[in-house]
Amino acid sequence: MGAEQGDDMITDIDNLPKNDANYTALTPLWFLERAALVHPNRKSIIHGSLHYTWLQTYQRSRRLASALLKRSIAAGKTVAVIAPNIPAMYEAHFGVPMAGAVVNCVNIRLNASTIAFLLGHSSAAVVMVDQEFFSLAEEALQIWEEKSKHNFKPPILIVIGDESCDPSALQNALGKGAIEYEKFLETGDPEFAWLPPKDEWQSIALGYTSGTTSSPKGVVLCHRGAYLMALSGPIVWGMNEGAVYLWTLPMFHCNGWCFTWSLAAFCGTNICLRQVTAEAVYLAIANQGVTHFCAAPVVLNTIVNTPANQAILPLPRLVNVMTAGAAPPSSLLASMTKRGFRITHTYGLSETYGPSTVCAWKPEWDSLPPDVQSRLNARQGVRYIGLEGLEVVNTQTMAPVPADGTSIGEIVMRGNLVMKGYLKNPKVNEEVFSGGWFHSGDLAVKHPDGYIEIKDRSKDIIISGGENISSLEVESFLYQHPLVFEASVVARPDEQWGESPCAFVTLKPEVDGSKARSLAEDIMKFCKDKMPAYWVPKSVVFGPLPKTATGKIQKHLLRAKAKEMGPVKKSKL
Amino acid sequence: MGAEQGDDMITDIDNLPKNDANYTALTPLWFLERAALVHPNRKSIIHGSLHYTWLQTYQRSRRLASALLKRSIAAGKTVAVIAPNIPAMYEAHFGVPMAGAVVNCVNIRLNASTIAFLLGHSSAAVVMVDQEFFSLAEEALQIWEEKSKHNFKPPILIVIGDESCDPSALQNALGKGAIEYEKFLETGDPEFAWLPPKDEWQSIALGYTSGTTSSPKGVVLCHRGAYLMALSGPIVWGMNEGAVYLWTLPMFHCNGWCFTWSLAAFCGTNICLRQVTAEAVYLAIANQGVTHFCAAPVVLNTIVNTPANQAILPLPRLVNVMTAGAAPPSSLLASMTKRGFRITHTYGLSETYGPSTVCAWKPEWDSLPPDVQSRLNARQGVRYIGLEGLEVVNTQTMAPVPADGTSIGEIVMRGNLVMKGYLKNPKVNEEVFSGGWFHSGDLAVKHPDGYIEIKDRSKDIIISGGENISSLEVESFLYQHPLVFEASVVARPDEQWGESPCAFVTLKPEVDGSKARSLAEDIMKFCKDKMPAYWVPKSVVFGPLPKTATGKIQKHLLRAKAKEMGPVKKSKL
Repeated sequence: MGAEQGDDMITDIDNLPKNDANYTALTPLWFLERAALVHPNRKSIIHGSLHYTWLQTYQRSRRLASALLKRSIAAGKTVAVIAPNIPAMYEAHFGVPMAGAVVNCVNIRLNASTIAFLLGHSSAAVVMVDQEFFSLAEEALQIWEEKSKHNFKPPILIVIGDESCDPSALQNALGKGAIEYEKFLETGDPEFAWLPPKDEWQSIALGYTSGTTSSPKGVVLCHRGAYLMALSGPIVWGMNEGAVYLWTLPMFHCNGWCFTWSLAAFCGTNICLRQVTAEAVYLAIANQGVTHFCAAPVVLNTIVNTPANQAILPLPRLVNVMTAGAAPPSSLLASMTKRGFRITHTYGLSETYGPSTVCAWKPEWDSLPPDVQSRLNARQGVRYIGLEGLEVVNTQTMAPVPADGTSIGEIVMRGNLVMKGYLKNPKVNEEVFSGGWFHSGDLAVKHPDGYIEIKDRSKDIIISGGENISSLEVESFLYQHPLVFEASVVARPDEQWGESPCAFVTLKPEVDGSKARSLAEDIMKFCKDKMPAYWVPKSVVFGPLPKTATGKIQKHLLRAKAKEMGPVKKSKL
Repeated sequence: MGAEQGDDMITDIDNLPKNDANYTALTPLWFLERAALVHPNRKSIIHGSLHYTWLQTYQRSRRLASALLKRSIAAGKTVAVIAPNIPAMYEAHFGVPMAGAVVNCVNIRLNASTIAFLLGHSSAAVVMVDQEFFSLAEEALQIWEEKSKHNFKPPILIVIGDESCDPSALQNALGKGAIEYEKFLETGDPEFAWLPPKDEWQSIALGYTSGTTSSPKGVVLCHRGAYLMALSGPIVWGMNEGAVYLWTLPMFHCNGWCFTWSLAAFCGTNICLRQVTAEAVYLAIANQGVTHFCAAPVVLNTIVNTPANQAILPLPRLVNVMTAGAAPPSSLLASMTKRGFRITHTYGLSETYGPSTVCAWKPEWDSLPPDVQSRLNARQGVRYIGLEGLEVVNTQTMAPVPADGTSIGEIVMRGNLVMKGYLKNPKVNEEVFSGGWFHSGDLAVKHPDGYIEIKDRSKDIIISGGENISSLEVESFLYQHPLVFEASVVARPDEQWGESPCAFVTLKPEVDGSKARSLAEDIMKFCKDKMPAYWVPKSVVFGPLPKTATGKIQKHLLRAKAKEMGPVKKSKL
């Protein structure tokens, strides 16, 4: 004892080595093994009349991994999945990485040439496609082959049948040489002894951003991040063991915000939906014991606008809703709360494994008026447990903006919930990680309580006469108009001011569309009473809004449309 | 696109590098920073009339880290804390590792010479001691100094005052040159910009096993494991954000099973207790809104044996109890459940950051009779989410035993909830990690449902006439006797059978002790009706049972006593 031993210890206490007993790579694959052990007979997935248990899901995922490995699909290979929220899509989240490969869930609302680009860019070694999307995949493969010429290596093509769909589509696919998913599984071993990755930094998933302004970028996620996100989401949401989760959010969107893996960790039950409609959501709540679902604001909008007599109200139990994907107007949050849903408002990007900030509710808000509550809850909030850094900074200096609720800066993030990077895009990676932070491209303020609030995407800001106008703030007022169903505001060229706000509006179904002209004036007047004059939209256009697969309004298309309309003339003022 | 790019991609998709934006060392220290941001005004700790908020706890912990660094206490140094569950003890769990140093929480019920051994073995650079334990620490330091002679480097001695205690003890300590904790904090910066460890494998805590049979062994834990355990415990328990946690379990025992760090992650409230009594527990439940506490079975025994008119019943809300530390008799679980507590039964060791298996409740048990429920729940169960491997093996072959509920093997574990190793003990480390598993030394069976159940510590098995007798199983029958308060069964030498069971029993307070002889016979008769003849204790001894600081009955002392009694004579049969 004493100094000599003490000096040894200084080395010893930090140099005890890792070994097989005390260190394992973090991977969400462990969750499935555990769910199958602890609740082998509990329902893992319900898809119409098709039910699986956790033991079955584990066995089917191991079959998939084993079948893939038999065909040399292993580490470094990608498996594309083109499917809605069906059991095979869920199984791919486990089976593909159990083989060491990377799962790439493709947005099913993309067109064939974009899908061709993704398949080529990621060198898809396997394409798993739901029978409903087989012709889309076929077309994409043709385009890929044509573009790549003699270098084309055809991927293994697997078609997923669904008894609830038209059987001829499946027959057609099989006639064209695709392997049926169930047959493919039969070639795999249900007891396959999968191994975790040697390194938790190994890639688990690839997902392409919508690419509104350029080629889609491939976001690469790793086992470690997926593990941490799969635990962080449920913790901030207050999801407990045995939750019943309704799949309204597409699994192809950031792997369903990683709730694919969370459900295995929490031994819950996945309720699948091929088509998300307000009616289907209410029915699942009534009949399937749903306790949780995630949805973009656009889906919530449909849910609250379902007339009460067509909805199932009051709700049979507390239903927890996580929303993200676009900043929800506070009026929408208020309406959802009024219907009995508990709203957890989160924010994030594909690059952060899905939502990675949460507007954590404070008990001291309980006694505030509902509109104040919803306004506080409409903010993007604070970092998830798994995200270690969240700041709003001046992009030039990287200095945090003051927490005054008015100084605008860019949201930057750092930590274990930030992607590995974009696939084959070193230049953009350098930009997006500059200064040791991930640059979100979203503009926000920080409030005195430390909660952040988005003001706009940097490219969505409207600059009118040198003044910044937040398109989001104008939209939030438009949503308060009693006849407005949806609204999106973009910059339109303006002879006098450079740019001015142009509002694209969808009216509620009951509104008589023929009165559009007078309605446009009414809406502008409504705005004049509520906002600075230069914020008031100088143009109001009615009609359906173009949206991405995940319900995000495609502002770049609206901006193009506003540009086509030509500049606002001086005389209009 | 095509094959050439595809080949690039194979490297690219797994080789995207870590950088400051997308990788951070896992450490529970982040939880405190977040709690202070999200709930700055929420109570973090309540200790009698002393209250702190999360912002204050964060500032005080940063002060502590900063003050330590000013005195060159940094990575590689250990800080010993000798204190009951008080705020300073909690702060040390954050402040010490924020300085990069390792916190060593010392069992306050050890004697001075054992503490001297621990301080010397870990080369304590700082000793923080609660005023009540100052003379104990003083004596330990003297012994350490004497043993180490001229090599002794006196540690910085900090005394923690407590207004609820006798002020003369504090004055005495200050007179002897100790620094007062609050004065020490004043030398630190409340805004100190702490940094996470560069490597999450860096050590965060050291804790000594009770060392019943040899010198205490120093269990070294790392930041990564502490982070994962701090999330895993609440997940298996169903603890949510804002829990109110009563500190009945000593923080010096595996860092309070890592709930010290969990409470920051879940922004809950810590209720401190200097002395744990059944009365204090019921009062805290009644007055402080307690939702959760952890306790060894011996503490639960006191709680259920408090007469209903002295307890606060019915409980004002659901109170969640996690129990571990010794296998609880199922009758005890039944009584706790009857009083309205929800019991989560877990099992683990200091070497696994505390409990790392849980008897996960199954909904299908809900409809079973209470005694069957309690018997199922008395099993040690399945692995925690953060522990990746749990098996019962034949130690010779390392092959898993059949899941038949009767084949006995050793419990082995592997994964991120296994310690780095024992400090300065390479020989034992090699043994304990042999075959790529951590060897627990506990003997168990695996049931057909995959749940494990402890049969005994390997050294506690009684071998009578060549047959194994589980001392635990004999004890569980003794606990069913209406007059038995506590029971412990060990091997006593036996002329005919080699060994035979000897029961040490504490009777319930209302029992007339003078009737011991007839009671002993009554107990043996009670046993004969319930168990194989060779299991029946041939000797019954009444009196208090020796216990460790954490309430574990010290069987090695009872074994020594049974040996002293001499062998059971043949004539006694």
